[in-house]
Amino acid sequence: MTENLKWQITSDSLDASQLLVDETLFHVANGYIGVRGNFEEGYPNHYNTIRGAYINGVYDISEVKHGEKLHGFIDSKQKIINITDVQGIKLYIAGEKFSLFDGKVLNFKRILDMREGIYKRQILWESPKGHIIEINIQRMASFIKPELFVIDYTVRSINYEGEIVFVSTQKGDVFNYFDPTDPRVAGELEKHLTVETIDIQKDIGIITSITNKSHIRVTSAVKHVVSSQHELERIQDDKSSTTKIRLYIKAGQAQRLVKYCIFTDSVRFSDCHQAAIDKMEEVLETPIEQLYQLQKVYLSAFWDKADVVVNGDDRLQQGIHFSLFELLQSVGKDQYSNIAAKGLSGEGYEGHYFWDTEIYMLPFFLLTDKALAENLLNYRYEKLEAARENARILGHKKGALYPWRTISGSECSAYFPSGTAQYHINADIAYMFVQYYFVTGDLDFVESKGAEVLFETARLWMDTGHYVEDSFRIDAVTGPDEYTCIVNNNYYTNCMAKYNLKWAVKFYELLKENNRIEHLAQKLGITEEEVNEWQQAAEKMYLPYDEKLDINPQDDSFLSKAIWDFENTPKDQYPLLLHYHPLYIYRYQVCKQADTVLAHFLLEDEQKLSTIKKSYEYYEKITTHDSSLSTCIFSIVAAKLGEIRKAYDYFMQTTRLDLDNIHHNTKDGIHTANMGGTYMGMVYGFAGLRIKESGIFFNPVIPEQWKSYEFKICYQGRMIKIHVNQEQSHYTLLEGKELKIHVYDQEYILNDDIIIKI
Amino acid sequence: MTENLKWQITSDSLDASQLLVDETLFHVANGYIGVRGNFEEGYPNHYNTIRGAYINGVYDISEVKHGEKLHGFIDSKQKIINITDVQGIKLYIAGEKFSLFDGKVLNFKRILDMREGIYKRQILWESPKGHIIEINIQRMASFIKPELFVIDYTVRSINYEGEIVFVSTQKGDVFNYFDPTDPRVAGELEKHLTVETIDIQKDIGIITSITNKSHIRVTSAVKHVVSSQHELERIQDDKSSTTKIRLYIKAGQAQRLVKYCIFTDSVRFSDCHQAAIDKMEEVLETPIEQLYQLQKVYLSAFWDKADVVVNGDDRLQQGIHFSLFELLQSVGKDQYSNIAAKGLSGEGYEGHYFWDTEIYMLPFFLLTDKALAENLLNYRYEKLEAARENARILGHKKGALYPWRTISGSECSAYFPSGTAQYHINADIAYMFVQYYFVTGDLDFVESKGAEVLFETARLWMDTGHYVEDSFRIDAVTGPDEYTCIVNNNYYTNCMAKYNLKWAVKFYELLKENNRIEHLAQKLGITEEEVNEWQQAAEKMYLPYDEKLDINPQDDSFLSKAIWDFENTPKDQYPLLLHYHPLYIYRYQVCKQADTVLAHFLLEDEQKLSTIKKSYEYYEKITTHDSSLSTCIFSIVAAKLGEIRKAYDYFMQTTRLDLDNIHHNTKDGIHTANMGGTYMGMVYGFAGLRIKESGIFFNPVIPEQWKSYEFKICYQGRMIKIHVNQEQSHYTLLEGKELKIHVYDQEYILNDDIIIKI
Repeated sequence: MTENLKWQITSDSLDASQLLVDETLFHVANGYIGVRGNFEEGYPNHYNTIRGAYINGVYDISEVKHGEKLHGFIDSKQKIINITDVQGIKLYIAGEKFSLFDGKVLNFKRILDMREGIYKRQILWESPKGHIIEINIQRMASFIKPELFVIDYTVRSINYEGEIVFVSTQKGDVFNYFDPTDPRVAGELEKHLTVETIDIQKDIGIITSITNKSHIRVTSAVKHVVSSQHELERIQDDKSSTTKIRLYIKAGQAQRLVKYCIFTDSVRFSDCHQAAIDKMEEVLETPIEQLYQLQKVYLSAFWDKADVVVNGDDRLQQGIHFSLFELLQSVGKDQYSNIAAKGLSGEGYEGHYFWDTEIYMLPFFLLTDKALAENLLNYRYEKLEAARENARILGHKKGALYPWRTISGSECSAYFPSGTAQYHINADIAYMFVQYYFVTGDLDFVESKGAEVLFETARLWMDTGHYVEDSFRIDAVTGPDEYTCIVNNNYYTNCMAKYNLKWAVKFYELLKENNRIEHLAQKLGITEEEVNEWQQAAEKMYLPYDEKLDINPQDDSFLSKAIWDFENTPKDQYPLLLHYHPLYIYRYQVCKQADTVLAHFLLEDEQKLSTIKKSYEYYEKITTHDSSLSTCIFSIVAAKLGEIRKAYDYFMQTTRLDLDNIHHNTKDGIHTANMGGTYMGMVYGFAGLRIKESGIFFNPVIPEQWKSYEFKICYQGRMIKIHVNQEQSHYTLLEGKELKIHVYDQEYILNDDIIIKI
Repeated sequence: MTENLKWQITSDSLDASQLLVDETLFHVANGYIGVRGNFEEGYPNHYNTIRGAYINGVYDISEVKHGEKLHGFIDSKQKIINITDVQGIKLYIAGEKFSLFDGKVLNFKRILDMREGIYKRQILWESPKGHIIEINIQRMASFIKPELFVIDYTVRSINYEGEIVFVSTQKGDVFNYFDPTDPRVAGELEKHLTVETIDIQKDIGIITSITNKSHIRVTSAVKHVVSSQHELERIQDDKSSTTKIRLYIKAGQAQRLVKYCIFTDSVRFSDCHQAAIDKMEEVLETPIEQLYQLQKVYLSAFWDKADVVVNGDDRLQQGIHFSLFELLQSVGKDQYSNIAAKGLSGEGYEGHYFWDTEIYMLPFFLLTDKALAENLLNYRYEKLEAARENARILGHKKGALYPWRTISGSECSAYFPSGTAQYHINADIAYMFVQYYFVTGDLDFVESKGAEVLFETARLWMDTGHYVEDSFRIDAVTGPDEYTCIVNNNYYTNCMAKYNLKWAVKFYELLKENNRIEHLAQKLGITEEEVNEWQQAAEKMYLPYDEKLDINPQDDSFLSKAIWDFENTPKDQYPLLLHYHPLYIYRYQVCKQADTVLAHFLLEDEQKLSTIKKSYEYYEKITTHDSSLSTCIFSIVAAKLGEIRKAYDYFMQTTRLDLDNIHHNTKDGIHTANMGGTYMGMVYGFAGLRIKESGIFFNPVIPEQWKSYEFKICYQGRMIKIHVNQEQSHYTLLEGKELKIHVYDQEYILNDDIIIKI
């Protein structure tokens, strides 16, 4: 693998099932729009394809039916929608239609270049009649102009002279994906978007559609720019518009069509139709090559801050780059959007935002791009009122309960035992508000947003838990492990709730000390007495501990269950949730993912190291990692425990999950949380970073397989570079004032740089 | 209340909401067919009505959708269907249509006579034009000819002379009930039955329909017999047939139309169309008055065996009669049917059979009509194969798991935490097979059916439970209390499973002693080793016990939860399940119904009386009785504990539940289990009857409000009468050889009769 290939994802597969995966891997996105990597010219009829484009935060409402609908069960949910299809460009050479499934494919390669932010398709093709052409297509979702998606299509003739025709389409008649071979979705083709207007203004084809139930408008505007003299013909019906472009080509000559596509929506723009025209005109003012250059500059700055370099394993390096790049492609960059579980690469999990954002993805942004991190937290603050309403639905008289999965703020989970019951999402969000405060020291943000979120989530814990004698307990919730549902005193939940309560108190005191509490206390009706109750509940929080095993039981009843019969479970029965009734799974000690082990990472000071070690060993034996959120956490805790080989193995299972389609469902979209997990595995795992109230801590280790690794982080106005090789770790203060750091629990003042033996 | 009224239910209400309730209360049924008490002439358009007729065991398949469908969730369920509507008879007097909502109602009364087995409607009506007529309509679902439902319609003119016209309809175009004002069911009008053929043979109008998905045929045959000379005209379309009958009437004269309706189905008859004609011809051979007489004779025999007499409270007596009569109306009398939760009186619970049959209703039949009890157990035996399949769906490699709710044998519960997870249904069924053996001593039945059911259910417990050190534990099931779901070691479940395992062993040994085990052991592959495992698990069964409180906790975690805030729960928030999210309810100590207390009744020897007393007192405080299966059990245990006043209060809440529409949903059908509970309250509660391996036991008490009570039971070939008054209890052997009985734990030989002071 050359240096270049560490920065590129490539494929030359025309295999039907890999094409579905490649549609995901080669999608382009910028956090606002995402377009799957479908072939412009289409596929043979019998090929299944998930042709899609999405806007972050643009959704329709889907009805939810329940076999038995109990009180508070959701009636409807949000669902990301497939928007206007602008991907279509057919090419005709003397009447022969270009297709990779006809004629001879002399060369075919697709490349995602992560430094350029461009996805390319390179083809050398001989038509059935013997005409040979070279095709280069590149796509970009611009980070600079977020509304812009562009297809840049170049044809070079090798041996043909004559007419070529581009037939470019803009289709408003789109559906969300469904699989007609799957009986569970057959006949459930969901039509969410209806074309309202279709017209041409200033040579720009414009379609404005509206979602059926959420009444959100989406406009697509398309402008074709052609390299040389041509004839242009438009055909339009009430749902789509087709542009035919006729050109003359000579052998050795190239022709080029640039299809500019602008997407706007009524969530962001009061008149999205006009906004699309305006944005298009604005974009056209800049030459395309300059837009590519700006993309590269943007990414260069990104990689400069965010790159994690590993020397000694190029495939791993490729996996890391892909993970970080996908995080950037996926993250919402305005207050209307967050990060969907599949980013903007597919319709899996319906475009919903989960706790994945806070616990798995926010750390990356927090350490590399404060503004993006702040935006993600702003989103949660904006949804606080919806979380209050959700708490009322769940029976709580006070506080706010963030929904398990959502786009616009209301609960979208239709199976509450492994959805809504995961109350820990409240504490997960609170945890990241606190981490944000640690990293930025931004008291204004605490005052304006963070404190309110912590106070309202703290209130929810008070209304959920209760005292048994002298201990505060939380019953009937579900922890991160979805193979064990609705339990009492889930260790993770109680631990995190304790932290939530503790920091609600600390934020209160912090603001009080600074004379900044009055307004908020008044607004929320918070009294000192209430704050004392939080303090007391945090102190008295019950954390299950088993003396005999010296571990933290996952919940009150976990250890009394039988251990799953792993020995007699065939490999093809994983993931278990696809092969066993949940009731059967609930009966056993078996974990889908890190639960107690995750608590041992996030709140490591709650337990002795020996207990963490025993817990880790105990849960390792019974965890299937059927969730993509699991191996990264085991890797981090293994690294902490000095189990470098284990940490390495878990990490390697994490980093290429989508590139190697390990979970067999990458066709439905990337696993964004796992990509965040890849970052965390490096930074929190191998480098042992922890950010606490008491400062910044490193505990670097390095697997024997690597020569060295290196990354930068931003912390309290500084930028620090960390380099670790087999002999030493090296800390360099790149920006900002000197600061105290801790390495292997030893305190140092980092001024210029420090080198410490490993 | 006169003597007569103890045997009659009456109403004169024309109030819209009470009419819906009266449709249920005045339904007529015989265990095969049931017809709701709708007015033949109909209602004003704006009246809501649930017009229905049902055949026990005749169902269609309904699709079940889930918001999130996990492995093993049901795709479809059975649903009782509304069959051909034969209730319509309109009456015209000189062109004026008779209606209780027009003209003047001079007299109106409906009467259900429980000794005659007839429902009557008596009307004196003056038409808007001043014609006065008297109408007497009576309906019967014949116990002698189960396919027969008859409407016997007599008009007497007071002051009118001229033509009267009956317009009688038979409508094949029927739907299951839906409520257009309820958004959850709007637009979900379910059409299950499609007319196949409609014709007239031998003056009989016949409609044969077929269910859409289960492909069950239903035939209705209607024959009109008119009192005097008339003109008859038929109008027929492809879905219904109408018969117009013109008669001449004079003042003082009466005219009578008898509408014979026969229902047959393809579950019971290979050619139900022909069977309906045959049955009709057979019925017509017997004069109608004789059919009425036979009905009375049948009921006379029933009451002779089954009546429970209470002197001193006529309203109570009426409630008891209604309960027993409804049990008789509801009980399936062939192998294809059981007892639906709403009998044949409505569509509530979709006509499903639950554990209600075994634990609440079978005792009545077992003690009064062995054949009916045997039939109910036969039904379960017939469904054993389906129960094996259900166990596989739930992940079990061996054994059988009876579905929580079903008609044809497969699971119909769409919310498994309070449905399928109620594994105790297995032990409930086993328990009644054992009770049946105690009462009948029928070893043939044990050999042919009972043992197989007990062996297969025992196997399921072995596959569900596991050992923790020296105790056998059962995790992740739900007990009878549906406000606490998916728990470990539910006391009721473990207790009942223990009994199930113990009696599987005993049945094995019993058959072995009699050299009757070989065939069955071979068929099922049962070894002595396996039987020993059952024995051991029964002995080692873990039964939660709290030493401090001296009670049996409902499950492992029950006592550690907070107690529901009853004080601050407004009355209109009950039943809780309609006002709180299940997750909220699960978080608290609050019971929908008797759970541990039920175990203390069914298996009273498992605990010391003091523990039972403490348990009863504990659970009493936290039980809402939101289920209709609860107060009867609390009454029985209160009686056992000598809390006669409490027993009386709970009993009085039980006996008139439907007559007084206490649960506000009698319109959807009667609560059959509660009616069984009424019987049990008397016999097991006040009389303190218990039937055990060691014999028959009485512990009679009597509330101060009553003079006396009396009933008969059949036991091991004897019939015994029990009479209890304020001074003494009196046992009379009416049939059979002398036997040993126990009264207040004292042993007696009952030969002729025994009187014992109270």
